Amino acid sequence: MSQSSILIRGGTVVNEDASSRSDVLIENGLISAVGVDLKAPEGAEIIDGGIDTHTHCQLPFMGTVAVDDFDIGTQAAVAGGTTMLLDFVIPAKGESLVSAYHKWRAWADPKVNCDYSFHVAVTYWNEEVAKEMETLTKEHGVNSFKSFMAYKGVYQLNDGELFNVFQKCKELGALAQVHAENGDAVSEGSAKLLRLGVHGPEGHMLSRPEEVEAEATQRAVMIANRVNTPIYIVHVMSKAAAEVIVQNRREGKRVYGEPIAAGLGTDGSHCFHCNWRHAAAYVMGPPLRPDPTVKEHLMRLLATNDLQCVGTDNCTFNADQKALGKDDFTKIPNGVNGIEDRMAIVWEKGVVPGILTPNEFVRATSSSAAKIFNLYPRKGRIAPGSDADVVVWNGDASRVISAKTHHHAVDFNIFEGMKVHGIAEVTISRGRVVFRDGVLHTMKGSGRYIDRPCFGPPFDGIEARDKDRDERKLKVEREPYTGPVVKDLGVLRVYSQEFLRSVDREAVLLL
Amino acid sequence: MSQSSILIRGGTVVNEDASSRSDVLIENGLISAVGVDLKAPEGAEIIDGGIDTHTHCQLPFMGTVAVDDFDIGTQAAVAGGTTMLLDFVIPAKGESLVSAYHKWRAWADPKVNCDYSFHVAVTYWNEEVAKEMETLTKEHGVNSFKSFMAYKGVYQLNDGELFNVFQKCKELGALAQVHAENGDAVSEGSAKLLRLGVHGPEGHMLSRPEEVEAEATQRAVMIANRVNTPIYIVHVMSKAAAEVIVQNRREGKRVYGEPIAAGLGTDGSHCFHCNWRHAAAYVMGPPLRPDPTVKEHLMRLLATNDLQCVGTDNCTFNADQKALGKDDFTKIPNGVNGIEDRMAIVWEKGVVPGILTPNEFVRATSSSAAKIFNLYPRKGRIAPGSDADVVVWNGDASRVISAKTHHHAVDFNIFEGMKVHGIAEVTISRGRVVFRDGVLHTMKGSGRYIDRPCFGPPFDGIEARDKDRDERKLKVEREPYTGPVVKDLGVLRVYSQEFLRSVDREAVLLL
Amino acid sequence: MSQSSILIRGGTVVNEDASSRSDVLIENGLISAVGVDLKAPEGAEIIDGGIDTHTHCQLPFMGTVAVDDFDIGTQAAVAGGTTMLLDFVIPAKGESLVSAYHKWRAWADPKVNCDYSFHVAVTYWNEEVAKEMETLTKEHGVNSFKSFMAYKGVYQLNDGELFNVFQKCKELGALAQVHAENGDAVSEGSAKLLRLGVHGPEGHMLSRPEEVEAEATQRAVMIANRVNTPIYIVHVMSKAAAEVIVQNRREGKRVYGEPIAAGLGTDGSHCFHCNWRHAAAYVMGPPLRPDPTVKEHLMRLLATNDLQCVGTDNCTFNADQKALGKDDFTKIPNGVNGIEDRMAIVWEKGVVPGILTPNEFVRATSSSAAKIFNLYPRKGRIAPGSDADVVVWNGDASRVISAKTHHHAVDFNIFEGMKVHGIAEVTISRGRVVFRDGVLHTMKGSGRYIDRPCFGPPFDGIEARDKDRDERKLKVEREPYTGPVVKDLGVLRVYSQEFLRSVDREAVLLL
Amino acid sequence: MSQSSILIRGGTVVNEDASSRSDVLIENGLISAVGVDLKAPEGAEIIDGGIDTHTHCQLPFMGTVAVDDFDIGTQAAVAGGTTMLLDFVIPAKGESLVSAYHKWRAWADPKVNCDYSFHVAVTYWNEEVAKEMETLTKEHGVNSFKSFMAYKGVYQLNDGELFNVFQKCKELGALAQVHAENGDAVSEGSAKLLRLGVHGPEGHMLSRPEEVEAEATQRAVMIANRVNTPIYIVHVMSKAAAEVIVQNRREGKRVYGEPIAAGLGTDGSHCFHCNWRHAAAYVMGPPLRPDPTVKEHLMRLLATNDLQCVGTDNCTFNADQKALGKDDFTKIPNGVNGIEDRMAIVWEKGVVPGILTPNEFVRATSSSAAKIFNLYPRKGRIAPGSDADVVVWNGDASRVISAKTHHHAVDFNIFEGMKVHGIAEVTISRGRVVFRDGVLHTMKGSGRYIDRPCFGPPFDGIEARDKDRDERKLKVEREPYTGPVVKDLGVLRVYSQEFLRSVDREAVLLL
Repeated sequence: MSQSSILIRGGTVVNEDASSRSDVLIENGLISAVGVDLKAPEGAEIIDGGIDTHTHCQLPFMGTVAVDDFDIGTQAAVAGGTTMLLDFVIPAKGESLVSAYHKWRAWADPKVNCDYSFHVAVTYWNEEVAKEMETLTKEHGVNSFKSFMAYKGVYQLNDGELFNVFQKCKELGALAQVHAENGDAVSEGSAKLLRLGVHGPEGHMLSRPEEVEAEATQRAVMIANRVNTPIYIVHVMSKAAAEVIVQNRREGKRVYGEPIAAGLGTDGSHCFHCNWRHAAAYVMGPPLRPDPTVKEHLMRLLATNDLQCVGTDNCTFNADQKALGKDDFTKIPNGVNGIEDRMAIVWEKGVVPGILTPNEFVRATSSSAAKIFNLYPRKGRIAPGSDADVVVWNGDASRVISAKTHHHAVDFNIFEGMKVHGIAEVTISRGRVVFRDGVLHTMKGSGRYIDRPCFGPPFDGIEARDKDRDERKLKVEREPYTGPVVKDLGVLRVYSQEFLRSVDREAVLLL
Repeated sequence: MSQSSILIRGGTVVNEDASSRSDVLIENGLISAVGVDLKAPEGAEIIDGGIDTHTHCQLPFMGTVAVDDFDIGTQAAVAGGTTMLLDFVIPAKGESLVSAYHKWRAWADPKVNCDYSFHVAVTYWNEEVAKEMETLTKEHGVNSFKSFMAYKGVYQLNDGELFNVFQKCKELGALAQVHAENGDAVSEGSAKLLRLGVHGPEGHMLSRPEEVEAEATQRAVMIANRVNTPIYIVHVMSKAAAEVIVQNRREGKRVYGEPIAAGLGTDGSHCFHCNWRHAAAYVMGPPLRPDPTVKEHLMRLLATNDLQCVGTDNCTFNADQKALGKDDFTKIPNGVNGIEDRMAIVWEKGVVPGILTPNEFVRATSSSAAKIFNLYPRKGRIAPGSDADVVVWNGDASRVISAKTHHHAVDFNIFEGMKVHGIAEVTISRGRVVFRDGVLHTMKGSGRYIDRPCFGPPFDGIEARDKDRDERKLKVEREPYTGPVVKDLGVLRVYSQEFLRSVDREAVLLL
Repeated sequence: MSQSSILIRGGTVVNEDASSRSDVLIENGLISAVGVDLKAPEGAEIIDGGIDTHTHCQLPFMGTVAVDDFDIGTQAAVAGGTTMLLDFVIPAKGESLVSAYHKWRAWADPKVNCDYSFHVAVTYWNEEVAKEMETLTKEHGVNSFKSFMAYKGVYQLNDGELFNVFQKCKELGALAQVHAENGDAVSEGSAKLLRLGVHGPEGHMLSRPEEVEAEATQRAVMIANRVNTPIYIVHVMSKAAAEVIVQNRREGKRVYGEPIAAGLGTDGSHCFHCNWRHAAAYVMGPPLRPDPTVKEHLMRLLATNDLQCVGTDNCTFNADQKALGKDDFTKIPNGVNGIEDRMAIVWEKGVVPGILTPNEFVRATSSSAAKIFNLYPRKGRIAPGSDADVVVWNGDASRVISAKTHHHAVDFNIFEGMKVHGIAEVTISRGRVVFRDGVLHTMKGSGRYIDRPCFGPPFDGIEARDKDRDERKLKVEREPYTGPVVKDLGVLRVYSQEFLRSVDREAVLLL
Repeated sequence: MSQSSILIRGGTVVNEDASSRSDVLIENGLISAVGVDLKAPEGAEIIDGGIDTHTHCQLPFMGTVAVDDFDIGTQAAVAGGTTMLLDFVIPAKGESLVSAYHKWRAWADPKVNCDYSFHVAVTYWNEEVAKEMETLTKEHGVNSFKSFMAYKGVYQLNDGELFNVFQKCKELGALAQVHAENGDAVSEGSAKLLRLGVHGPEGHMLSRPEEVEAEATQRAVMIANRVNTPIYIVHVMSKAAAEVIVQNRREGKRVYGEPIAAGLGTDGSHCFHCNWRHAAAYVMGPPLRPDPTVKEHLMRLLATNDLQCVGTDNCTFNADQKALGKDDFTKIPNGVNGIEDRMAIVWEKGVVPGILTPNEFVRATSSSAAKIFNLYPRKGRIAPGSDADVVVWNGDASRVISAKTHHHAVDFNIFEGMKVHGIAEVTISRGRVVFRDGVLHTMKGSGRYIDRPCFGPPFDGIEARDKDRDERKLKVEREPYTGPVVKDLGVLRVYSQEFLRSVDREAVLLL
C-alpha cells in the first residue's frame, strides 16, 4: 500500500462525540472511509491528529531566538501526535503586519513537517493597522489576532486600543485573542522584587501573582462583551483567571480559555529550585503558579468545557540563553517546551484518573481548536473527506519524558522524569506516515500553511445577540423638554456674593 | 435644662453591638453618662447621629453648581438624623490640592450646621501632588483620598498612576478611595449610544452597564492589594461590583464598599420614564441599575457587613440645570439627592423587613463610617466621652417623602411618594438640639471641621500583613550560574544563512 | 420516491458539532448518505429528530389519568419535531417492577407513533427490587432508574435507600435519576400553607420554594458521588438547584441536569392568576418559579452545557381533573404540557436571542439525550447508518401556540398565545414522513420500544475514577498498637465516688 | 488591694469595636470603671475573658469518659485566657432532658473554676421532649439545643424531627444548633472502608469527606430557614461546609458557624501518621480535613464574620481510651483537646499574620459568643457593669505547646510543639485572679452556672421577617371554580376498553 493509501485496521475510532470499533481508509491525503466491516485485530485508539493552538517556533525574543525552529518544532509535534501548529506572527511596534506575516511565512514554509497556520499579534494601533488586519484576513487566511495587556512599553495596548482592535476583529469576523496580565502591575511588581533583592527566577513568579492575571482577564472579557465579539484568552495559568472565564461564560459571554501543557502537567514550585538553570527553565509569562493544585483544577475545567483547547506556548531557550537573566529575572527569556508532550500530558493527567473521557480528550486536544479556529471538520474529526491527519494512539503504553530523548532542540524538558501513558504509535500527516514506532519519517517543507476563513463558529449567534441587545429598542420616545435651561452660570445667583467670588468660574464651565 | 445639658429619658439606647433601656445625659457637647437608673416613660431608640460618607455640597460640576450648599445640605442632614457629612474637595487637573482644600473650607465653614470633614480627590499625579497629600494629612486632618477610574480626559487616572496614589496613601496611613468605572468603556459606550440615536437619560444608563463598574472595582482592588493598602469603593451601585467586593473580602483583601441611599431605595428604571425631567433626575455615575432587585441585594450585603457604610453622593441639580443635557445625556449634570432621607431609607428597606437589626442599622449608618474614617468612638457610639451627636429615632412613625416638604434646595426628590418608617424626632449636634418635632433649630456655621488622624482602623494588621507576605522570605539562596551565556546573538549560528538574512537583528536585540 | 427512500435536498444539515450544506438520503429507515454534491434550492435546517427525555403519557396519578395517551402524546411529538419519547414506568410501592414494566409496554406499544423507551421508577427498596432492576437492564433494555426524594409516604426514599439504589445502578451500569425535592419540607410547607388559609394554586408554589429543591439536589449528588455513579437530575426548575449542579460539575462530579420546556418557556407567576383554572394549569412539582428570570438563566446553562438535555415532564390534565384540588392545592393533579412545543420553545428562547447556536440547539434537544441514554449515534445525529429520525426545521417560520390548534388532548396550553419561531416542516420517523406541512401522517403502533444498553457514555471514566480514588491506596501500614486498653470503664477510677455514683454506666457502655 | 478590688494599669483595652489606652478598675466581681486618667507603664492588651462555645467535660461517650472533667477543664480554660465554657448536656435516647440536665449540673457545679453554662442536646423527639425544652428554657437558663444529623441509630434525627425541634426552638426563642453530617453517608462510608480493609484512623477521615458535612449543613440551613429560626452550626470543619454557610448568609439566612481550635490550628494529615496513637489522637467528628489550607480559609471567614465564634469540641481521651478502636476506627472515641490553647491558636494563626485585627480577635473569641448566646455585655466586653472576667494578654510573648506542660488531664496535645504567640499573663474570673504568671490560683466550685435568657440577639428581626414573608399576603382571592370535577375515574372513559382493563384502578385512586 502506498503512502497515499492507508488502511488502519482494528482500532477504536475516537471522536469527540463518540467512539466506535472501525477501520479507517486514507486515500490521497484525505480520509475516504470509516467502516466497520473489515476483520481486524485488537488495537489502539484512532484519533484525529492534535492541534497545538499556541507555539512560538524560532521566535526572536528578549535578545535571542527560540531554539525550536519550524523544522524541529514540527518534528516534535508529530512525534507526540500533534499534526498542526498555530504559531504567532509578532510584528515589532510600528512594523507592518503584512510584512511581518511574509517574513514569518518565509521562515516557516521551507521547514514545516506538518500543517500549520498563523495568528498575528497587534502590538500597536492606527488606521494602517486596521487596513492590514483586513488584508491578512482576506488574502492570507488569518482569522485570529492577539493583543497584549502586558509587556508595558513594548507590546502592551491600553483599554482604548483594545476597544479598537476588538471592534475591528468583530467587523472582520476574526477572533480576538489576549495575553491577559496587567502590565502596570507586572512592571511595579518586578521593580519591587528587584528592589527587595530578589533577583532569581522565583522573583519572576512572585512579581505577578494570580490576581494580576485574573484582573486583566476580567477586563478583556468586559471589553470584548461591550463590543460583542468573541474573545480567546491564551495561556490560562491560574485558578483565579480560570474562575473569571467560568463566571463570564455562565453569564453568557462568548469567551474561550486555553490552558497549556505546562500548566496542566507541572507547576511553578520549580522556580524555587536551588539550581538556577532548573529554576529558570520554568520562567514564562504568565507564570506557572506555585500552587500544586492548579493543574488538576484546570483539567477539570477542560472536562466541563469551561476551558476549551490546549496549547503549549512552546518557546524554548537553552541554558546559555536563559542565562541572559542570570542576575535579573526580568531578563530571563520567557518560555517553556510542550509541543511534543502536550497530548501525553493531557492523557496522563486527564484520562488516566478519569477526569476526562477519551472523547473529551479528543475534544480538548483537537476538535475544539479546529472549531474555534474554523478548521472543522477538515481538521479535528475522523470522517470521510477530512484531512488525513490521523494518529494511532496507544493509551496503555507509557514512556518517561526526558530531554535526553525528546525531539526538541532545547537542552531541558520541564516534564523531565515524568512517566506518562499515551503514545503516538503512528502519526499520519496529510496521508503520509511521518512517525512510526518512535522513528520520524518527516519531509521538511511538506506541511502546508492552512488558510482559516473568518466568521467561524465563535461568531455563531453573534449577530442574533447584536439584534437582541440593540439598545435602540430601549430608546424612549419623549416629548422634548421645553422648560428653562440654566445659562451663563445663572444658577450661581442663588449664592451669596462671597461665594460667587470664591467660585472658580472657569472650572465650573469646563467641568 | 440648658442646651449644654440634656437628659434623654426612657428610650432604648441602640449601639451597633447591643441595645439597652437607658437614659443619656449630655453635658458640654459630650455624652457624660449612659445609665439605667432613672424612671422613664416608654420611648424611642436613642442612636448616635448618622454619618453620611459621601456628599458634594455646592460642587461646581459639568458647567453648573450643585444647589444644596453647605448650609442647606447640613440642614437636610440634621432633619434626617445625620449629624456629620464627609464631603469631597475635588481639585481641577493641575490645581494645588492644598489650595483647593482651603477654597472648599472657605465655602463650608461659614455655613455648616453640623460637623463635617473632607476627603480630597487626586485628579492627576506628580511629585508635587505627593507632597501635598502629605501636607493635607499632617496639617489638615485629611485621611482619605479619592481617585477616579472614569471621566476620561478629566479626572481619570491610569493604572500606573493609581499605583502611585495608593502607594502614597499607604505611606501616609490614609485611605485610598476610588470611583470605580472603566472610563474608556464609558467613553466608548456613550459615543455608541449617541451614534445609535439614543440621546435621552436612558442612554446614560445603557452606555455603562454593571460589568463596566465591576471591572474597575476588580482592578482597583487588585492594585490596592499589590500595594497592600486598604481600599474603599465609593458608591457601589451594582450586584456585579458588590460581588467583586464580597469575593475579595473573603480572600482576605482589605476592601470596603459604600452603597448609597439612592441605590438602596430606588433604581434606574426611572431613567426610562417618559417625562424627560423625571428621567434626568436619576442620572448619576455609576448609574442606578434598571434591575429592581439590586437594592435588596445591596441591603443584604450591609447586613453581612460585606458592604459597610452608607453614603448618598448627594449632588443635586434643578430642572434647569439637568436641562443642560436635554439633547445629549452626556451633558446632564450627574447627581441625586439623599442626605435627608438616607437614614429613613435604610430603616424602611432594611429594618422593617427584618434584613437589618436595629444594631446593624446603627453600624451601617454611623459606626462603621466612624471606624473606617477614624472618628470612633468620638463619633459612631453613644458612650460617655463621645461627641453628643445624638438622635431620638422613632422607628414606628412614618412619613411620605416629597420634594414639597424636604429640606433640600433641589426641586425634585428621587424618593418622591415613598412612605418610610423611621423619623428623627430630635437631632442633637454637639449637645445642641438642632431639630425637633419637624422644626429646624440650626445655627449656620456652628459645625466644626473634624480632623481625622491617619492610620485608623483600616490599617490595623496591614503591617502584620506586610511582614507576613514579605517576598524576601521566599528568596532562594543559590550558587551563581557559571555556565556560558549567549552573546552577540550567537544562538543564531545554529540557523541557516537564509534565516540569518531574514531575521530582523535589531528587533531581536531590542526585545 | 417511496417512503423508504427519501432525498432531502438543499438544506443545511445541523449536527451538534457543525453545520454543512448537504443533502440527506434515507433508505430503509436509515440514513444512507449525507452528501454535498447534488444541486439543491435554498432550504431549511435538516436536524435529527428531537428526544423528549421526560414524559408521562396516560399516567395514573393523584386519582386520575393523564389525558395525553401514547397515541396522542406521540402525535404531539412528531408535530413538534420530536421523534422519540423517554417515558416513565412508575410502580406502586410494593408492586413488581417487571410487572409494571410489562403493563406500561402493553399500554404503549399499540399506540406509539414514533420510537420510545422507558425509564423505571424505584419507589421502595428490598432485595427483590434489586433483582428486578437487574432483569430490566438485562432483558428489557432499561438503563435508567428514577428515585423520588419527595412524595412523602408514597414514593419517597430515605438516604439509606438512595444509597442502595444508586449502588445497584452502578453495578448494573444504569443511570440513577432523581426527583429532587425534600419531601419532609414539602409536607411541612403544604400543611403550613393550608393552615394559613392559602388553599389555591399559589399555595403549591409557596409551600416548596427553591431551597427545597436545591437541598435535595445537593444531597442526591453527594450520595451519588460517594457511590461514584453518575446522577441525572430530572426537571431542574430553579436557579438554586441549577447552581448546585453547576458547582458540583466543576468539582468533577458526574451529574446531569434536565430543564424542561415549561421551565424554559414560562414561569410560576401564572399560579397567581385570578382565574383558578388558569392558575391550576401551571401546578407541577417541583413548581415553576415566580422569578421570571429563571427561564433565561436555565437556557444559559444549556449553552454552557452545565445542563444537558431538555425534557417536558408532559403530564396533562383537563380542567375537570385539575378541579380535584379546587379547594386544596395538594389535590391538584401535578402536570403540564410540553411534548409538542419543546423544540420551538428552545429555539425561540435560545437560538433567536443568540444564547444558543443552532448546533447547541441540536445538542440540547437531541444529541445529549442520545448520548446520556446510550442511543447515540443511532439517535441524535444525522449520519450514515443512523436511524432516519429526521426533521426539516424552518427556524425563520413562526406560529402562535394555542390549545385550540395544538395536537395534545388537554384543554389548556401553558404557552397559550406565545409566538415562537422554529417549525417542523417535515418530520420523518424511521424513514417515514409522519408530519408534513402541518398535517399528521402517523401510523398508530408504528413506533418501536428501543432497548438501551447499560454502561453508556455516563459511565466513561467511572472505572478510572474508582481506581484513582481507591481509598486502599491511602491505607497506612503501621506497627500495631500494643499499649494498654481501657476496660470495664476503668477510666472512671480517676473520678470521685460521687461522680461514679452519678454516672449512667449503662449509657457509657452503650454509646 | 484585695481580690475584690483590682486596678489594671497601663494596658490597651481591646474590645471588639475599638482599642484604647485605659486602666480598668474591678470591684465586687464587676468592672466598675474603664478610664484613661491614671499614669501607667507600657503594657499588654486588656481583653475580656474568652468564651469557649463548645466543650464536653467528662463526657461519657463511646464506652468511656472524657478525661478532662469540669475541674481540670476549667483550669485549662483560665490558664489559656478563657473564663467561660459552654458545655453540653447529652441525654441518652429516651432519657428525660431535665433529669440529664440535673445530672450534668451535679457533675459540674462542685468542680468548675470559672463560669459556665449548658447547651442541651435533643436526641429523640416526642411531645414530652417539647415540654422539657420549655422547662429548660424557663427554669434552667438554657437557650440553645443541639440536634445531631449524624450518629445513625444513636443520636441522629431525621428531617421531620428536625422540623419539630427547630419549630419548638423558635417558639421558645432558643437557638437551634446542629452537628451537621449526613449520618447515612457516614455509616455507608465507614462500612465501606472497613470492608476495604482500612481499619486505622485514616479510615475515619476517609469515610466522611467534606461533602458529607456540607450536605448536612445545607439541609439544616434550609430547614431552619423554612421555619424562620436562627441556626448555629457547631464545629465547621471544612471549606465546603463553610462555603454553604457563607452563601446562605449572603442570601439573608440567619445562620452562624463555629470553627474550633483544632480546625484552625492543625489538620487531618496527622491521621496518616505512622504511629497509631498519634493518628488516633486526631480522630473527631466531623473529621479534621487532610487539606492543609483549610485552617487559613476558616480563619479568613472569621475575619469577615462569615463564621462567628470559636469553640473547641474539647473531649479528651488518653491513649488507653483511644485504644478501644485500635482495630476498628469506628470504635476510637472521638475527640481532641483545645480549651487551653484556643485563644493562642487564634492569635497565632489569625492576628500574627494580619488576618485578624486584635479587635476581631476579641470578637471571635469572646464577644460574638456572648451576643449569640445572649450573655452580652455581661460577658464579652470590658465595660462598667460587666462581669469582671478579664485577661491581661501579651501578644508578643510566646510559648511552645506541649502535653508535658499543658493543664489538661489528657496525655496528648494535638498542637504539640507549636510555638504560639499570645499568652494570658493574668486571668481574672469574677474579679478574682485565677491565673497569673503561669500559676493557677483557682478555687474549685467557685464558678457559677450562668442562666441565658431566650430571645437573644439571634432573634432580632425574626419577627419582622415572619411578617415580611407571611405567605398570606400572597394569597389570591378568586372566584371559586364552578366547572365540572372529574369523578369516579370518569376521565378513563376517553380511553379504550383494553386500556380500561389494564389500568390498575386501585392505584389510580390511591395515588
